[in-house]
Amino acid sequence: MSLPDASTLSAAEAARRMREGLLSAEELVEACLARTREAEPQVQAWQFLDEAHARAQARAADEHRRSGEPAGALCGIPVGVKDIIDTADMPTENGTVLHAGRTPRRDAAVVARLRAAGAVIMGKTVTTECAYFHPGKTRNPHNPAHTPGGSSSGSAAAVAAGMVPVALGTQTSGSVIRPAAFCGVYGFKPTHGLIPRTGILALSRTLDHVGIFARTLEDIALVAEELVGWDEGDPDTRPRARVPFRAVLAEEPPLAPMFAFVKTPHWARAAPDTREAFAELAAELGAQCEEVELFPSAADAWDWHRTIMEAEMAHNLEREWRTGRDKLSETLRALLERGREVRAVDYQRALAMILPVVESFDELFMQRYDAILTPAAPGTAPEGLGSTGDPVFCTLWTYTGLPAVTLPLAQGANGLPIGVQLVGRRGFDARLLRTARWLVEKIAGKPA
Amino acid sequence: MSLPDASTLSAAEAARRMREGLLSAEELVEACLARTREAEPQVQAWQFLDEAHARAQARAADEHRRSGEPAGALCGIPVGVKDIIDTADMPTENGTVLHAGRTPRRDAAVVARLRAAGAVIMGKTVTTECAYFHPGKTRNPHNPAHTPGGSSSGSAAAVAAGMVPVALGTQTSGSVIRPAAFCGVYGFKPTHGLIPRTGILALSRTLDHVGIFARTLEDIALVAEELVGWDEGDPDTRPRARVPFRAVLAEEPPLAPMFAFVKTPHWARAAPDTREAFAELAAELGAQCEEVELFPSAADAWDWHRTIMEAEMAHNLEREWRTGRDKLSETLRALLERGREVRAVDYQRALAMILPVVESFDELFMQRYDAILTPAAPGTAPEGLGSTGDPVFCTLWTYTGLPAVTLPLAQGANGLPIGVQLVGRRGFDARLLRTARWLVEKIAGKPA
Repeated sequence: MSLPDASTLSAAEAARRMREGLLSAEELVEACLARTREAEPQVQAWQFLDEAHARAQARAADEHRRSGEPAGALCGIPVGVKDIIDTADMPTENGTVLHAGRTPRRDAAVVARLRAAGAVIMGKTVTTECAYFHPGKTRNPHNPAHTPGGSSSGSAAAVAAGMVPVALGTQTSGSVIRPAAFCGVYGFKPTHGLIPRTGILALSRTLDHVGIFARTLEDIALVAEELVGWDEGDPDTRPRARVPFRAVLAEEPPLAPMFAFVKTPHWARAAPDTREAFAELAAELGAQCEEVELFPSAADAWDWHRTIMEAEMAHNLEREWRTGRDKLSETLRALLERGREVRAVDYQRALAMILPVVESFDELFMQRYDAILTPAAPGTAPEGLGSTGDPVFCTLWTYTGLPAVTLPLAQGANGLPIGVQLVGRRGFDARLLRTARWLVEKIAGKPA
Repeated sequence: MSLPDASTLSAAEAARRMREGLLSAEELVEACLARTREAEPQVQAWQFLDEAHARAQARAADEHRRSGEPAGALCGIPVGVKDIIDTADMPTENGTVLHAGRTPRRDAAVVARLRAAGAVIMGKTVTTECAYFHPGKTRNPHNPAHTPGGSSSGSAAAVAAGMVPVALGTQTSGSVIRPAAFCGVYGFKPTHGLIPRTGILALSRTLDHVGIFARTLEDIALVAEELVGWDEGDPDTRPRARVPFRAVLAEEPPLAPMFAFVKTPHWARAAPDTREAFAELAAELGAQCEEVELFPSAADAWDWHRTIMEAEMAHNLEREWRTGRDKLSETLRALLERGREVRAVDYQRALAMILPVVESFDELFMQRYDAILTPAAPGTAPEGLGSTGDPVFCTLWTYTGLPAVTLPLAQGANGLPIGVQLVGRRGFDARLLRTARWLVEKIAGKPA
């Protein structure tokens, strides 16, 4: 039996082999670079990738391990980082020519935490323009004529194509869950405020989340455990005990989980194969799955989300609008113009409704459900590279800041992946991953 | 030597006598009620006062003390409470006919804390309409032809007239410091977020502060110590160790304090007798007082404050505007109309500037100053009851959330009080009171 190509290993498996001396970080990074050279011409996942710099980090990780000093949980693991997340040693261009050549002075808090855990920052992955809708160059690894989704396009595609085992993205509407679903990988957007956003292009304090892409749930948990925590630069984070993501993920649920199948008020947008996949899933879960109609106020959340996103993006991108709006896409310029017209009363009303909606979901979860089951996107990745697809099935969970994970459990009529999204109670992130693992093992019949 | 009328005692002195068995709560409350019957026809400080209910609370306090159970620091002390602060046992009408007869189901957090410390909630003091500018019925105890200031008109006047030793008010622009100055009492507005606002008519989360009126600094400290702390209903409060206001107040400053005399960009509005009083004060302080020009961005704070106040009041009073704006004063209606037009980008910009301005003040304090010395108001209480006077010398300290205290140390040409305002570093509230005590003893030559 020959060893598999190291680029196909999960991060957790690679970390085990490195701990046991069966694999070096340099070999792992070399395998990922080889895979990247092979796939990148078609996929175009990277905005910046310096092979020599990646190798140097890998050698440093190997030396660190040989020194006998304690090695971090991610020692030698290559990670892709979305190009709106600051890195002190690489450019961070935010997907706009206005920031071309920009090299930050400091790492974002999440990058600093990855490095502290020993990770190799492989490079910067393609983002849409300012993480909004105007697409970058990336294509879907399953079919280059289809979008990878966005805005974390490169992170989703790089993980799906085997160029890195894990990558970071961000979500303000559907920018982690949607590309993960379109590219057929796991995507996780934890509870709002759990992972600090310090040093990341700010679009919306209320809606911005950091998310994680991986090919296994164990890898999601491995990375999440390193990123969660308080940071003085992010006023929405709180001092808290470390969340034992990996330990909780490995537990068996005390009872078989109950799922609330939520079609949302936008079910009409779901494609036939998505509807069919969810009908089959619900049938397979039997009594463990009940269709649940949302309380009426949830229907307004899409409008409230838009009001907040437009107003906060207009505020945060005011400098770009003032000094270079002729260099922005029509899509982004139109958003900023709408945002500049939003009234403060409408904005505050939209903010004020978050808490009551979250509390209504708390009741739903406390009644009897472990997770909400809902599509990650209306269908498979749409054909064409001019659009990154529709975030409509992510909006409500971004607005409320609830933890969400998408699982690559289904397939469309065209053979492209369909994501199954699970949403958990706010603050119950590790349990959501445990429920997700249960579902993956039940449906796919193999360890997640 | 005959005992003084108990209504003239400070709260701290009355508490001492009650602890020593020289005075009962019932006697104290009875003396305050007698003083109230005498002064109220002229002053009109009370919106609601039920003598029997006050007496019943006093008797309960006396019984509690006799029982031998530990008695709170305010056991038996009568407190006036501004009529926008909810009380479960008395109406809270917020100064508008729209809320006539409103009786809340729960005490505001500060009222619950007063009761837990044993205080007698004497009654509800007159507020302007929704704590904005339209005056209530209260008159200045020093001269009934003059305004007491607002919006905490009744609380300032009741303390000044000897009807209660201490009272609570609120400040969103200048509603604690200005009436305290006009009525010749101490007024204290602590750092934003130090005292919870749960159960108080919300005008502006960013700007609303609870404040305290008293006739001595010791009483300010006594009450502040009971009110400070985290409350789950106020997201701007934080869990923190109890602030030892009384102990710090009693300390000698390690060095003679340095004062930064700040005229603000609005010095042109200061009346001749105010200018003269501050020139004399600065001269008396000699090398301990330096005139300081503010950094340029501070000049915009008045506009930013107005933007935030208008936008947040329009949000918080949206129901009143929708359902009863014909019953609001022209002043308030015009404010709400302006607030409804504020753009979310302007609102967010005004919010975003608070932190940099606070940090500039932090530098100023760290350089060499213990407190900023500045007027509490342009002059003495203006003649007439149609206006509550000009809050311009309070606005900057409300916008920044810095702690501020006004000291009744000067007198105008008309014999009415002039307040000397001291402003401290954000979060250094107890030290500000210690500096204030030093100044009072230096200027007035007697214990504060």
